[in-house]
Amino acid sequence: MSSPAASRITAVDTFDIRFPTSRELDGSDAMNPDPDYSAAYVVLRTDAADGLEGHGFTFTIGRGNDVQVAAIDALRAHVLGRPVDELCADPGLLARDLTGDSQLRWLGPEKGVMHMAIGAVVNAVWDLAAKRAHKPLWQLLADATPEFLVSQVDFRYIADVLTPEDALHLLRRGREGAAERTGLLKERGFPGYTTSPGWLGYSDEKLTRLARQAVADGFTQIKLKVGADLADDVRRCRVARSVVGPGIRMAIDANQRWNVDEAIEWTKALAEFDPYWIEEPTSPDDILGHAKIREAVAPVKVATGEHVQNRIVFKQLLQAGGIDVLQIDAARVGGVNENLAILLLAAKFGVPVCPHAGGVGLCELVQHLSMFDYVALSGTTEDRVIEYVDHLHDHFLDPVVIREGHYMAPTAPGFSATMRPESLAEFTFPGGTFWAADLAQQARTDQKLTGQKGAAA
Amino acid sequence: MSSPAASRITAVDTFDIRFPTSRELDGSDAMNPDPDYSAAYVVLRTDAADGLEGHGFTFTIGRGNDVQVAAIDALRAHVLGRPVDELCADPGLLARDLTGDSQLRWLGPEKGVMHMAIGAVVNAVWDLAAKRAHKPLWQLLADATPEFLVSQVDFRYIADVLTPEDALHLLRRGREGAAERTGLLKERGFPGYTTSPGWLGYSDEKLTRLARQAVADGFTQIKLKVGADLADDVRRCRVARSVVGPGIRMAIDANQRWNVDEAIEWTKALAEFDPYWIEEPTSPDDILGHAKIREAVAPVKVATGEHVQNRIVFKQLLQAGGIDVLQIDAARVGGVNENLAILLLAAKFGVPVCPHAGGVGLCELVQHLSMFDYVALSGTTEDRVIEYVDHLHDHFLDPVVIREGHYMAPTAPGFSATMRPESLAEFTFPGGTFWAADLAQQARTDQKLTGQKGAAA
Repeated sequence: MSSPAASRITAVDTFDIRFPTSRELDGSDAMNPDPDYSAAYVVLRTDAADGLEGHGFTFTIGRGNDVQVAAIDALRAHVLGRPVDELCADPGLLARDLTGDSQLRWLGPEKGVMHMAIGAVVNAVWDLAAKRAHKPLWQLLADATPEFLVSQVDFRYIADVLTPEDALHLLRRGREGAAERTGLLKERGFPGYTTSPGWLGYSDEKLTRLARQAVADGFTQIKLKVGADLADDVRRCRVARSVVGPGIRMAIDANQRWNVDEAIEWTKALAEFDPYWIEEPTSPDDILGHAKIREAVAPVKVATGEHVQNRIVFKQLLQAGGIDVLQIDAARVGGVNENLAILLLAAKFGVPVCPHAGGVGLCELVQHLSMFDYVALSGTTEDRVIEYVDHLHDHFLDPVVIREGHYMAPTAPGFSATMRPESLAEFTFPGGTFWAADLAQQARTDQKLTGQKGAAA
Repeated sequence: MSSPAASRITAVDTFDIRFPTSRELDGSDAMNPDPDYSAAYVVLRTDAADGLEGHGFTFTIGRGNDVQVAAIDALRAHVLGRPVDELCADPGLLARDLTGDSQLRWLGPEKGVMHMAIGAVVNAVWDLAAKRAHKPLWQLLADATPEFLVSQVDFRYIADVLTPEDALHLLRRGREGAAERTGLLKERGFPGYTTSPGWLGYSDEKLTRLARQAVADGFTQIKLKVGADLADDVRRCRVARSVVGPGIRMAIDANQRWNVDEAIEWTKALAEFDPYWIEEPTSPDDILGHAKIREAVAPVKVATGEHVQNRIVFKQLLQAGGIDVLQIDAARVGGVNENLAILLLAAKFGVPVCPHAGGVGLCELVQHLSMFDYVALSGTTEDRVIEYVDHLHDHFLDPVVIREGHYMAPTAPGFSATMRPESLAEFTFPGGTFWAADLAQQARTDQKLTGQKGAAA
């Protein structure tokens, strides 16, 4: 074998990573009572001398993580063998090849399992590109020319609202003052808000303690899960508001629990506690429903996005006046490229972007997108906050750093997506050390119960 | 082992079935140049003495069919062990359990790979229920009480537009004259239209021959694929219109090729050939885009639905005035139960339902839904036609029967979903007899080419 002229992608390795979070009721909400936070994780390896890898993932909450891994596996043939220089110079080309695969497209198009898989792979390419450029991703994007960024966006199905010329204009405007904002970002970070106090499974005592802690930690916004039981919600909102006082923003989040009319009634019933926004009041697919809710519940703002499938639905949520706050997710849509399109749509409509995060590694990823947005597109942090949840960060090599309620700008090259090798070894399902031991323990318990039943019979 | 008190589901077997249709350019259109029509196929087995099985499937066009199979496998635990009587008496309960699985829901919700998998399993239950009732599915549904049918619908996220009371009213009204319509249906069948002449990959000669044949066969509507090249489309529409004359409806289908503004321009450029509808002018996710297109291209009608992910998007297409023709697909949404919701929404808005079919087995399935709609809901076949494509029917035990351009009412019990065992044995990928031989042949060819290259070097 002669050595290749240019280095290429030599492996697309996938991992089914699951954390047993359901045992602590972390992350419980009205629709998701017992999530096991998980990642369908992908590593791109190359034969380049630098030894750098591209890491990416889809976040899931347990069952079905294997389906998500199978979807990433289905993309392998598109990535394997690509020249690394070309791939990293134009991730948008791969993104278009993946969403345009005519056979795989049938499984979406551009939504659900297959689209999230594309997002994981595209994000892994951006991770590799940023590592090779020796820059954190936010800086790679902020340093890029407007022309390059426009070339990275797929305008199909959004060109009626956002043209390449519009995008160029927004990005050129965004560059004004970018150097100064970069300095401010490095000094102060980007504002965050915390969901840690507000999970449904927590007691009032724990809610009180964590809400108090959130204010002490410098957060100016917290979020409470609602939607399972109105009397509970009234009590929990009252507790939280009394703890944090009137000066702290308190968002509420129904995780799609309601029909349109229920959303309106329920939100109004909680209005006395001055919620800043109602998040995911109904199905993320219901554009017209969000518009109706928003009109009815003002001045409470309407927020959604963590389950919005792609730029086309975001386009319409903005067109229809369905949202006050746009919540991107770094690992739901088709990766950095589609999120660029969504950030541009938000900028065109002047709607603030407040990312969804938490889960596994979503904070690590999405901070880069908000920081780029601040430095080189929207130009402001006003009314912009990134969700923060203090779970599972220690599994990452370059975990988020929070100071005084702010995300500090990452300095390590890449997309902060790389999980520790020992975490992969422990939490790979079902063969990792944690799960192997856990499943063996379960099998012993099952056997014992069967034995007891047999003896009792 | 003592025998169980009631018979239960004992196996949920899955098959990755692929037909090599790309080699004939059957099914080629502007977005899908080389589909290999495939089915992620599921068989529910029981320990009942009747030996009956429930069959269902998701249609895909090749790559990714394995991901779809993995998604069906992920549902197995929900189905295995269920008592058959209860399951068949209330398939809606299973449908709700599947869409409501909080962890799997994260992978949608209610869209894409995971939702289509749910559709396959739910449809398999209805197949089993109809077989056990000794009725074709259309008749099982038409004979059911309005109260039962309402109990089968999930009104979540559509109740702002369609309440259970609305549904009950529509179904009670639909029963009036049902006996007479059943007689007419058995005598004349349900009107179809054919897409067979219009695939993009066909020559003008083949288009001419097949369009002439379609009229001779009694079809009163044909459909042409468009959207790859305007000059070609003008020529092909001219050829087809001149062959079929002015009295035959000619639909055109862009398979999502266009942006909103392109859709308007292109459709107007073809208006001189009097197209009856423009199908899938743009992304199925673009509700507001469809409304804009519809307003601009009238009197050409706007049709979509084969890729519409769920009842929530259909609800909005109707609310926004985005479509003149609603095209259900039997295997895209969450099965019969969700299609009941969609038929009810269409009935409420008075919009005709003209199902998408073709592919593998989609004609076999969807005829049952249209026939139910005619007999017991809409009460009419006016402006209603089911797509017909003459591919791959011989793989089914109970294939569609077309007479004088009409689908004849199925008489065999079930959902017409059962594939011949010999077809499963031949076209299972990659181990079936066809694919094993084909892949071996490919390997030999590859080896030979490598050998020649080696010799030439």
